[in-house]
Amino acid sequence: MEDTILVVNCGSSTLKLAVFDGAFQVRASGLAERLHHSDATAQLRNHDQPVKLPPEASHRDALEAMIHALVDLDILKGTPSAVGHRVVHGGETFHDAVLIDETVIEAIEECASLAPLHNPVNLSGIRATRALFPSVPHIAVFDTAFHQTLPRKAYLYALPYDYYRQWGVRRYGFHGTSHQFILTESARRLGRTPATTSVISAHLGNGCSITAIRDGISVDTSMGLTPLEGLVMGSRSGDIDPGLFDFLKTKGIDQDQLHHVLNHESGLLGLSGQTNDMRTLCELADHGHEPSLVAVEVFCYRLARYIGAMMVSLDRLDGLVFTGGIGENSSRVRKQTLDHLGLAGFSLDPELNQDHGQNSDGYINDADSRFPVLVVPTNEELVIARESQRIASSQ
Amino acid sequence: MEDTILVVNCGSSTLKLAVFDGAFQVRASGLAERLHHSDATAQLRNHDQPVKLPPEASHRDALEAMIHALVDLDILKGTPSAVGHRVVHGGETFHDAVLIDETVIEAIEECASLAPLHNPVNLSGIRATRALFPSVPHIAVFDTAFHQTLPRKAYLYALPYDYYRQWGVRRYGFHGTSHQFILTESARRLGRTPATTSVISAHLGNGCSITAIRDGISVDTSMGLTPLEGLVMGSRSGDIDPGLFDFLKTKGIDQDQLHHVLNHESGLLGLSGQTNDMRTLCELADHGHEPSLVAVEVFCYRLARYIGAMMVSLDRLDGLVFTGGIGENSSRVRKQTLDHLGLAGFSLDPELNQDHGQNSDGYINDADSRFPVLVVPTNEELVIARESQRIASSQ
Ligand SMILES: Nc1ncnc2c1ncn2[C@@H]1O[C@H](COP(=O)(O)OP(=O)(O)O)[C@@H](O)[C@H]1O
Ligand SMILES: Nc1ncnc2c1ncn2[C@@H]1O[C@H](COP(=O)(O)OP(=O)(O)O)[C@@H](O)[C@H]1O
Repeated sequence: MEDTILVVNCGSSTLKLAVFDGAFQVRASGLAERLHHSDATAQLRNHDQPVKLPPEASHRDALEAMIHALVDLDILKGTPSAVGHRVVHGGETFHDAVLIDETVIEAIEECASLAPLHNPVNLSGIRATRALFPSVPHIAVFDTAFHQTLPRKAYLYALPYDYYRQWGVRRYGFHGTSHQFILTESARRLGRTPATTSVISAHLGNGCSITAIRDGISVDTSMGLTPLEGLVMGSRSGDIDPGLFDFLKTKGIDQDQLHHVLNHESGLLGLSGQTNDMRTLCELADHGHEPSLVAVEVFCYRLARYIGAMMVSLDRLDGLVFTGGIGENSSRVRKQTLDHLGLAGFSLDPELNQDHGQNSDGYINDADSRFPVLVVPTNEELVIARESQRIASSQ
Repeated sequence: MEDTILVVNCGSSTLKLAVFDGAFQVRASGLAERLHHSDATAQLRNHDQPVKLPPEASHRDALEAMIHALVDLDILKGTPSAVGHRVVHGGETFHDAVLIDETVIEAIEECASLAPLHNPVNLSGIRATRALFPSVPHIAVFDTAFHQTLPRKAYLYALPYDYYRQWGVRRYGFHGTSHQFILTESARRLGRTPATTSVISAHLGNGCSITAIRDGISVDTSMGLTPLEGLVMGSRSGDIDPGLFDFLKTKGIDQDQLHHVLNHESGLLGLSGQTNDMRTLCELADHGHEPSLVAVEVFCYRLARYIGAMMVSLDRLDGLVFTGGIGENSSRVRKQTLDHLGLAGFSLDPELNQDHGQNSDGYINDADSRFPVLVVPTNEELVIARESQRIASSQ
């Protein structure tokens, strides 16, 4: 056994894998895609040769093939010291990462009613990896755990109270590992401890969410019972009028169809009619493609609205932090968003913003801004590795 | 013909009626309830005797009976000079109040697909009143018209763009006459003209909505395609996770049931399990009834979140204004809401708030507040009367 941590992240047809050394440096990472399809593939980063997979490879097939490839390449020597697993939904059961045993697996199964598309897949990854490394501690790290500190005024919907008691209908929030990373990393840059840091963390990737963190604790967030609520996303609508279901029924669109549309044909893709990819969208907008311009406009406006909304949970704001593929790379989105926030007191330095804060330790605000604004690249795998190490070594 | 304006407001089983004199003073008002039911009643304000109605009285029956009572009491002499009608949904067709003719009636019928519960009832009120006063100008005043100035970034949902083009799926906003009244009245108190006044208007009654008004123009609002979106209301949920529909289906609650629950069994009523009435709720909370405490907490928190969100549409805020039954009367709700808004710069004077601003021309903020905060009683009938007079006299 050597001092490495393996991180496993299973999506419905994907498997991401990362190997960290004892100093939390990434030694290798890989991605398998289109699992269970005839054209399943797997690839290690910085290696041209794809990893060979059987046709219609399962998560387990991909995991084994990638691990063997890592061993063959001498990147993985023997078994890792711990394996960290991303699990989407921890319900109200899990407030923290946890060492996996049969009781934990049962509890994750119970939470699956809240995340029927995600938890079962996460579990099959856990089972496959445990079979491969049975003598090693496996740790579950939950997307929801960081948000379990939300006060009830922020997590309750104005629904019959029994929906919460009987079925756990409440706001859970997601992207917890990313928001937690942003907390730690922005605390460092702000010269504060995480426990005394209050920031608004805007994670803008294909999925988008924003979290208000008060003195190190998540106090509000935009995603809810499911990852559909909140901000405009790549192909997800975010907030809509709940009356939409009834209205579209009169147009012949039933609940199942609409659910699919809200998840897969809405957001940036729906408005632009072209793409869910912000980079492409900005290029189209630059070339005068009106629907793309509209999509970016709505995205930024709704984000600004949520930044204003998150401020009400804080009595001090140490920084507004952008992260995720869009947050880290799109100076245009950051500018267009902050243009709405003059009254709240934010203002950007155009050059620092253009450089994504790369030469200014992340800072992109100007001297007049009431609050610091930062760009901080996120690293969810690193959080999972650190959490796994912490839990494993505390046993 | 004399210089009076009749205002007619038809709900699904109610009819409200008001008579204004030439100086826009209310000369009489009345309310018919439970229309189409065996126990239909009608009553004029300040008159003990109920107005006699036939059993299962229609809107038309109630209208005729109340008008005759007003004539008998010598309150209405001859025909009014104009009749103003509240119409809920004007779609994108009506940006302003309008003189009713056959074309207008057809257009209101077309908008009925957007407000199937309201527009048909409004129309039957219009038809009955026109039959009674055929030679008088009738004016339609729309709940949605004031919000037709919303920019597209605020009115578009992140849905397939075709939903907007084909079916008019967008945010319309409601309570327009109230928000418009608040604009005019707060401008007066702030010593400004409406066209140079920027306020956030929070209308908190049984239905609740909030509007950002920039230089006299509505630029964002919390209600959407229907009056279900946005703030927590008496029995309406306001915003929820759109994934709720799919989730509750797994619990045996179908779309129609949920739609009913979201409209009639949610909001303050749903959370408290007791009542949709804020006054009763505050009393229950004072006696330690925990669910009522929670309901008030969620109501105020969500309202504060929306005040923060509305600020992003303004570059200057001349005042935050509370109105509607709750906004005008509940010092507790105003305080609990503004307690969340310290970082944004709001602060209340406890005594002025306790008095509902009655001895301070509406002002309830203290000297430290970055922005004025006011309580202004709304008067939707007066707006309808004024608008009707304006349109009638411009013909
Ligand atoms: N230079 C860029 N400009 C604008 N958007 C970018 C840029 N680079 C990446 N993005 C956007 O980031 C998004 C993907 O974010 P990412 O965090 O990688 O996604 P995921 O949520 O799947 O992890 C895409 O919309 C992509 O277009
Ligand atoms: N003194 C009060 N304290 C708290 N709430 C009050 C008070 N007076 C009226 N309300 C509340 O105002 C709400 C009704 O508002 P109103 O504007 O009259 O309703 P509508 O939207 O039907 O016109 C009810 O919830 C009622 O309890």
